[in-house]
Amino acid sequence: MINLSVDAMGGDHGLEATVPASIEVVERNPDVKVILVGDPQGIRARLGQKEVSGRIEVQSASEVVDMEDSPAYALRKKKDSSMRVAINLVKAGAANACVSAGNTGALMATARFVLKTIPGIERPAICAALPKLNGFTYMLDLGANIDSPPEILFQFGLMGSRLISCLGGPADPTVGLLNIGVEEMKGNETIKAAAEMFRQSDLNYRGYVEPDEIYLGDTDLVVCDGFVGNIALKASEGVAQMIMGTLKEEFTSSLSSKMCGLFARPVLNSVKARLDHRRYNGASLLGLRGTVVKSHGGTDHVGFRHAIEVAIEEVRKNLVSEIENSLTSVPVQDTLRS
Amino acid sequence: MINLSVDAMGGDHGLEATVPASIEVVERNPDVKVILVGDPQGIRARLGQKEVSGRIEVQSASEVVDMEDSPAYALRKKKDSSMRVAINLVKAGAANACVSAGNTGALMATARFVLKTIPGIERPAICAALPKLNGFTYMLDLGANIDSPPEILFQFGLMGSRLISCLGGPADPTVGLLNIGVEEMKGNETIKAAAEMFRQSDLNYRGYVEPDEIYLGDTDLVVCDGFVGNIALKASEGVAQMIMGTLKEEFTSSLSSKMCGLFARPVLNSVKARLDHRRYNGASLLGLRGTVVKSHGGTDHVGFRHAIEVAIEEVRKNLVSEIENSLTSVPVQDTLRS
Repeated sequence: MINLSVDAMGGDHGLEATVPASIEVVERNPDVKVILVGDPQGIRARLGQKEVSGRIEVQSASEVVDMEDSPAYALRKKKDSSMRVAINLVKAGAANACVSAGNTGALMATARFVLKTIPGIERPAICAALPKLNGFTYMLDLGANIDSPPEILFQFGLMGSRLISCLGGPADPTVGLLNIGVEEMKGNETIKAAAEMFRQSDLNYRGYVEPDEIYLGDTDLVVCDGFVGNIALKASEGVAQMIMGTLKEEFTSSLSSKMCGLFARPVLNSVKARLDHRRYNGASLLGLRGTVVKSHGGTDHVGFRHAIEVAIEEVRKNLVSEIENSLTSVPVQDTLRS
Repeated sequence: MINLSVDAMGGDHGLEATVPASIEVVERNPDVKVILVGDPQGIRARLGQKEVSGRIEVQSASEVVDMEDSPAYALRKKKDSSMRVAINLVKAGAANACVSAGNTGALMATARFVLKTIPGIERPAICAALPKLNGFTYMLDLGANIDSPPEILFQFGLMGSRLISCLGGPADPTVGLLNIGVEEMKGNETIKAAAEMFRQSDLNYRGYVEPDEIYLGDTDLVVCDGFVGNIALKASEGVAQMIMGTLKEEFTSSLSSKMCGLFARPVLNSVKARLDHRRYNGASLLGLRGTVVKSHGGTDHVGFRHAIEVAIEEVRKNLVSEIENSLTSVPVQDTLRS
């Protein structure tokens, strides 16, 4: 049996997304139990009769971490938050994994404080799948670390590679190091040193990649510092929104274009569906002694369910042990110690 | 009379883009003269009879900087390149500005070496307009500098603000500092210190902006380090291409969607036109003792003409002196010296 703790209060939609998603998950997975953490009355009201043969439990928590709470504030002042209690359940062994759509900074800080990192891992990272024309590119770090030195970038590559295999991707994913094309920049010492570590490792390293590779290329994993990764991610989201907005504006700018829009709607809907972030929702917090998945804050129950499914997959495939083992394998450890 | 030197050989299309663009520019601007620099035979073959009442001249240069040439190599080994000779003409006073679609790193290095920076400017930067739903956002640095300290970020803001006014934007453009939303990151010391300099200055500083502000917000100028700016730019280009690719795929996936595509074509074309980078082609190299504009390497004559027009505007409005004067105005200089 796989036990999951779900922060029922996190995200823009809170219980409206987390409770139906949890019901769907236990209905689809007979070997999964969910512990919904938060306001028991609110949760029970939405659960109704659906405690799916005892495979949904409710755990009370009296506080909620707000999006505006700093990680330090959430950690010190909200010790009975749904997020904290959900993570505590993983630490206590009552849950195999935790899923939250709450404040990313608070989730990372709390998970790191409660669960600690895997021995040898200096900094946990956030890794997610981004859509491309045919499939996905995984990318990390998306915002947990700034100014990552070479050995940390290398660990990101190691952890991300294991994640991809666990989630059903290639056993030996291709890895690229994010860099910019302007010649003089290629000299950035941190990236150069990281590249050297990748070259000497067992990872399927393919060299530097430019950011368009994320969306157009065939690299399975793109490794970068968290500041850079977060900027790339949010710039991408901004452009996508702008283009979709432009499309909408143009399709409603005149009667004739409205007619076109009517004809084009099924096609536009299928474009939207392909880009729909609910399909690939669920960012993994890697490097912790426990499985924690972050859902997009704005997602609905479909997206949240996908995030829970990512957590289930990581538990089934023992991702935490996989990462631990990859660290103790000889070539890697040598590189890290050199 | 405004004299422009044009690197006729640069870019993916070379003479095919640069010569027709130059002809169009002199036809449209009776006070502009263009010196086309490169292979005289190739240039003359494309010019035909079009030396537009003596306002197009040809200047011979025997070498071409390749996209693969490192800046150092271009600088040391290709002293008779079309790029170098075009920049030399600015230095010699024979041209008021130079436009090139060649290798960005080489252009920046050569321009910096030949023209030098404005006194007080430590690092020149690359600034360009990016499209948003209604208008443009200017952003710098897009790749000339990595690891920019606070005072350099501040100078970027100063130079970018002057550029925007010169190109017909608001006299006192709003300025934002690019940052990421994850809480713990907001502590990045460099950005914090830069923010403090902006707050104390006369610039119309609006605070931190996240990358989606570039495409969806109303900040006129977004300031960032060149590594980060280049990553944001190229990630954006990647997403835009992916979405356009997805649209194309979906509109050709079946007979019925092809029919839809037929109806939707005029609308899709106008979306494409709005996003067309030729409309905002022409990145300015700011901080040099001379006007240099970089055209997108892949653009055609329409885009290249736009880049030349940016250079003309900068000359007409005396951008270089504007930047020089803004540096010597009291509050700025004080901030820089403190």
